[in-house]
Amino acid sequence: MSVTEHTSVAQPAGNPGPATAKILSFPLNTWYVAAWDHEVTNKAPLSRRVCDKPLALWRTTDGRVVVLADACWHRLAPLSRGAVVGDEIQCPYHGMRYDAAGRCTHMPAQRTINPSAAVPSYPAVERYRFIWVWLGDPDLADPDTIPDMHQMTSPEWAGDGETIHADCNYQLVVDNLMDLTHEEFVHSSSIGQEELSEAGFDTTHTDTTVTVTRHMSDIDPPPFWLKNMNDKFPGFSGKVDRWQIIHFQAPSTVCIDVGVAKAGTGAAEGDRSEGVNGYVMNTMTPETDRTSHYFWAFVRNYRLESQTITTQLRNGVHGVFGEDEVMLKAQQEAIDANPEHEFYSLNIDMGGMWARRIIERMLAAEGRG
Amino acid sequence: MSVTEHTSVAQPAGNPGPATAKILSFPLNTWYVAAWDHEVTNKAPLSRRVCDKPLALWRTTDGRVVVLADACWHRLAPLSRGAVVGDEIQCPYHGMRYDAAGRCTHMPAQRTINPSAAVPSYPAVERYRFIWVWLGDPDLADPDTIPDMHQMTSPEWAGDGETIHADCNYQLVVDNLMDLTHEEFVHSSSIGQEELSEAGFDTTHTDTTVTVTRHMSDIDPPPFWLKNMNDKFPGFSGKVDRWQIIHFQAPSTVCIDVGVAKAGTGAAEGDRSEGVNGYVMNTMTPETDRTSHYFWAFVRNYRLESQTITTQLRNGVHGVFGEDEVMLKAQQEAIDANPEHEFYSLNIDMGGMWARRIIERMLAAEGRG
Amino acid sequence: MSVTEHTSVAQPAGNPGPATAKILSFPLNTWYVAAWDHEVTNKAPLSRRVCDKPLALWRTTDGRVVVLADACWHRLAPLSRGAVVGDEIQCPYHGMRYDAAGRCTHMPAQRTINPSAAVPSYPAVERYRFIWVWLGDPDLADPDTIPDMHQMTSPEWAGDGETIHADCNYQLVVDNLMDLTHEEFVHSSSIGQEELSEAGFDTTHTDTTVTVTRHMSDIDPPPFWLKNMNDKFPGFSGKVDRWQIIHFQAPSTVCIDVGVAKAGTGAAEGDRSEGVNGYVMNTMTPETDRTSHYFWAFVRNYRLESQTITTQLRNGVHGVFGEDEVMLKAQQEAIDANPEHEFYSLNIDMGGMWARRIIERMLAAEGRG
Repeated sequence: MSVTEHTSVAQPAGNPGPATAKILSFPLNTWYVAAWDHEVTNKAPLSRRVCDKPLALWRTTDGRVVVLADACWHRLAPLSRGAVVGDEIQCPYHGMRYDAAGRCTHMPAQRTINPSAAVPSYPAVERYRFIWVWLGDPDLADPDTIPDMHQMTSPEWAGDGETIHADCNYQLVVDNLMDLTHEEFVHSSSIGQEELSEAGFDTTHTDTTVTVTRHMSDIDPPPFWLKNMNDKFPGFSGKVDRWQIIHFQAPSTVCIDVGVAKAGTGAAEGDRSEGVNGYVMNTMTPETDRTSHYFWAFVRNYRLESQTITTQLRNGVHGVFGEDEVMLKAQQEAIDANPEHEFYSLNIDMGGMWARRIIERMLAAEGRG
Repeated sequence: MSVTEHTSVAQPAGNPGPATAKILSFPLNTWYVAAWDHEVTNKAPLSRRVCDKPLALWRTTDGRVVVLADACWHRLAPLSRGAVVGDEIQCPYHGMRYDAAGRCTHMPAQRTINPSAAVPSYPAVERYRFIWVWLGDPDLADPDTIPDMHQMTSPEWAGDGETIHADCNYQLVVDNLMDLTHEEFVHSSSIGQEELSEAGFDTTHTDTTVTVTRHMSDIDPPPFWLKNMNDKFPGFSGKVDRWQIIHFQAPSTVCIDVGVAKAGTGAAEGDRSEGVNGYVMNTMTPETDRTSHYFWAFVRNYRLESQTITTQLRNGVHGVFGEDEVMLKAQQEAIDANPEHEFYSLNIDMGGMWARRIIERMLAAEGRG
Repeated sequence: MSVTEHTSVAQPAGNPGPATAKILSFPLNTWYVAAWDHEVTNKAPLSRRVCDKPLALWRTTDGRVVVLADACWHRLAPLSRGAVVGDEIQCPYHGMRYDAAGRCTHMPAQRTINPSAAVPSYPAVERYRFIWVWLGDPDLADPDTIPDMHQMTSPEWAGDGETIHADCNYQLVVDNLMDLTHEEFVHSSSIGQEELSEAGFDTTHTDTTVTVTRHMSDIDPPPFWLKNMNDKFPGFSGKVDRWQIIHFQAPSTVCIDVGVAKAGTGAAEGDRSEGVNGYVMNTMTPETDRTSHYFWAFVRNYRLESQTITTQLRNGVHGVFGEDEVMLKAQQEAIDANPEHEFYSLNIDMGGMWARRIIERMLAAEGRG
C-alpha cells in the first residue's frame, strides 16, 4: 500500500485545532434549508422543525414563501394544521388569522385586535430548488451569504435528489462527507475501493470554506462509475483516473465534484472531456441536537435529457446514502452511550477538522461556544 | 359579521386576571372521578393513575368501593394485578392481604403481622354513575362538595358516555369546553356554524363556579341539531333559536346545557317546549401533568325510552370529541416545544379565565401555587 | 395453617440489616456473565451492554474470547457492527483495526499509528458454558472468584437454558429467587403449592454466600414434579417429600437444588435415591440500572441421555419464568412510580436480606455505597 501524507493548508497556515473534540451545537446566524421548493404551497401549510423551532411554511397567492413560528399567539395551537386562506394562514382551533409578517389580522368574535398579537416571522429565500430560512438575528440575514449550490438549477446540469431524516447531529454528516475514505468500508459494493485510502489528498480553506482534493490514477472503476462511463461511452472498459473534490461551505453545505475519465487523458490537469462528471449536492439542517434534515441531490453534466439516467443515479445514491444512515445512527447512539468519550482525529480528518474550526468560530461569534 | 361584545361579570366585579398564563398544576383537595361505577367490581381490581398516583380500585362484598395505593407495602408489587378475596385484596407476588382500610391482614409464612404494615386508603364516593376519589387531606373530604352532575342519574334524563384518554393537561380540556367558538373551526361538519363566534355571551361566576351563556336567534340548525329536532318533531325544517349555557364547577367539571327550539317560540326567555334539550356532561381527571382521563356523557330530556337515540347521540358526540382529541394533543405538543411561550387570552376566553382564577386560588390554598 | 418460624443464622450471628431498603447499584469488581459461549464467535462480533457499558465480544482464530469497549477510538462507531478479520476486529466506518488487547493496529491512509490509539479491553473467562467478564479494576480480576456453576458442564448433569431480557434491576431477580414462597401465588399451576409458605426454612451465610434450606414432608407433588417423578419412576403416584436449597453466590448467582422423593424415603436426611433432583442455575447481569440479562438453565441428574426430557424441562421452566418476568416488570414500574416508597421485609426475606447485606459490603469496598 502506498500512502502519501502530503496535506497542504493554504491559509491561515497551521493546525486545525486540538486532537479531540465533542459534538457541536448549531450556529443560528446562518441560512439553513428548511424544505424543497415544491414542498411549500399556497394550498396547505408545511410543518417542519428547524434548530429545535417548530415552523409553519406556506406561500402567499403571488408565490412568496412565508415562514412563521408554528404556534398560535393565542393558545399555541400549531398553525401548520390550519388552512392557507388567500395571503393568510388560519389557526385550526379558533380561526385566528396571520399575514405574511406574522401579524394577526382576525380574531374570533371581536372587532378590536390586540396590537401585540403576532407570531415570529423568519426571513426566507427561495434559491437552488430549496427554501432557505434564517432563524438568528434578522438584521444579519444577507441572501448573498447563502451557500453556492448553483448546479441545482443550472441548465448545464441535470439531476434530482431526496431528503433523509438522519438520526444524528448534523456535524456527524459533515464529518462523513468531508472524509470519503469511509467509502471503502461502508460502500464497498458501489463506489468504495481501496485506492481511496491509499491516495493522498490536499486540503485548503478560507474563512468560510474548506476544499479537499483527491486524485486516483490508473485504477479500476468501481461499479457505480463503470455504469456511468458506459452511459456516456457505450462499451467502455479499462482503467480510469478518478477525482473527488469536496467543497465545504459553512456551516453545513458540502458539494462534491466527482468523476472518472479514461486513464491518462488529463483529468487531473483539467481535461475531463474523456470522462463523466457529477456533483453530489448536500446540505444538512439541524432538526434537534441529535436529528437532522439531510437534503441531497446528484447532478451530472452529460446526457442531460435522459430522465432514465436521472432516476438511475438518484436511486443509486439513495442506496449508498442508506448505508450512511445506518452508520450515522449507530455512531450517534454510541456517542450517547459513551458521554465521556471524545473524538480523536486521523490524518484523513483534516478537512473535517477545518470545517469544525470554522463552525466553532461562528458559534463563538454568537456567544454560544 | 355582527359582533356583540357585551360580557357581564356578576361578582366579584373586575378582571379575571393577567393577559398571559401558563398551564396549571392540579389541586389535590378536591374530588376527581377515578372511574365509571361499572368499572369497579368485586371480581378483580382496576388499575388507574390519578394525579400521578397509581391506584387500585375494587369493591367489598357489600358493594362498597375501596381505593388503595397500588403498591404493596412489602416490595411494591401492584395490588391491581392481584385478586379480590372476599372483602380484601391479595398481592399477586407473595399473597399479602389488605382490608378496605389498607391494613395488612395476612403475611405469608408468619403469624405476627407488623403493625405498620399498611397501604394508603383514599376516601371514595359513588355518585352520578362515577367513582369519586379524594387524594388530598382526608379530613377535608366532604362529599357535599362533589360537583352536581345529577342529570347522569335523574329519571328525567337519558343518555350515555365514554372515557377519552386525552394526551394533554386537564386544563386544556377545561379551556376547550369553556369557549365553544372553536366549534366553527374544529367541528364544522357537525355542530359548528359561523353564528357561534358572531353571537355575544354573558359570563357570571361564584367562588367555585363559572357560567357562560350564549343565545343565537333565527339561524339554520347545524346537522347534529337538525337530526335531533327531527327525532322529536318528525319532518321539522326551518330556522331555530340555539343556546349553549356552560356550567363550570371547580376544578374540572363542565356541564353544558345545549339545545335548539323552533325560531321565535321563546327558548331564550325560558319556554323550551318547542325544542330539544341536551346536557353535555364532562369531568376531567388529571392522570399526569400532561395526560388526562376525560369522562363525558350526553343526556337528553325527550324520547327517554329510545336506546337507538342514546346510541346515535353517543356515537355522534364520540366523533365530535375525536376532533377535539387531535387538537388538544397538538396543542400540548406545541406547548412542550415552546416552553417560553405563554397563553394570551381573547374576549372569548372570559369563561376560561375565570375558571383558571378559581383553580389558582385552590392551588394557593394548598400552598402549591 | 402451620407456620414454623425457626430461622437459623450461622455466622456472623445477628440481624441482616434494617427493615427497609432501596434498590441497589451493581458492584463492578466482580465477574458477570456477558454471554453464552456459543454466542461469541470468530465470524462476527456480538454487541452486548453490561453494567451500562456497550461491549463488543468476539474470538481470535485460536478461540480465545476478547471483550472490547464497543466504540472506536476515532469517532465512536460501534465495533460490534464491524468485521472480525483474523485475530483482529475492524471498525465498520473507516476500517481502523484493533487486536485482542484493544491496541489499534491499522489506521486508514496513514503509516504511523498514534500510540494512544486503543479501546479498553476487559478480562474475560470462558467457563460453565458462559463468557464471564470483569469490568472493574483489572488487577483484582481473579478467575478463582467466578461463582461455582459446575453443574452446567459436569457429566453428571444434563440440561439446557435460555436468556431472559428482564425489565428490572438485577436485585429484584435475586430477591425473587431467594424467597420461593412466591411460587404459591405466581406459579400456582406448575410448581406452586400452599405448603411452601407453611414450611419453615433455615438460613446460613458466609462472607460471599447465603444458603436457604426448605423441606416439605408428605405432600402432594405439584404438576411439574409429578411429571418428573414419572419420567424416572413410570406410573408413580402418591405423596412426596420436597426440597429447595437455595445457594446464593455474590453478587447475582443463585443455584437452587430442587427435587422431590417418595415420601418417607429419607430425602431430607440425604438419601435421594427414590427421588428426582434438578438444579435451577441462575445468574443475572446488570444491563442498566433497570434492565438485566438473566441467564438460566435447568439441569437434572437422571435420564441424562434424553433430549426430549431436556427440551420438556427447558420449555416448562420457560413458562414458569415467563410468569416471573411479568411480575418483575410490574414491580419495577411500581418502584419507578413510587420513588419515595422503600421496601419492607418479612420473615420470608431472610435470605434476600443477607444477600443484600453482602452486596452492600461489595459496593462500600468500591466506594460506591
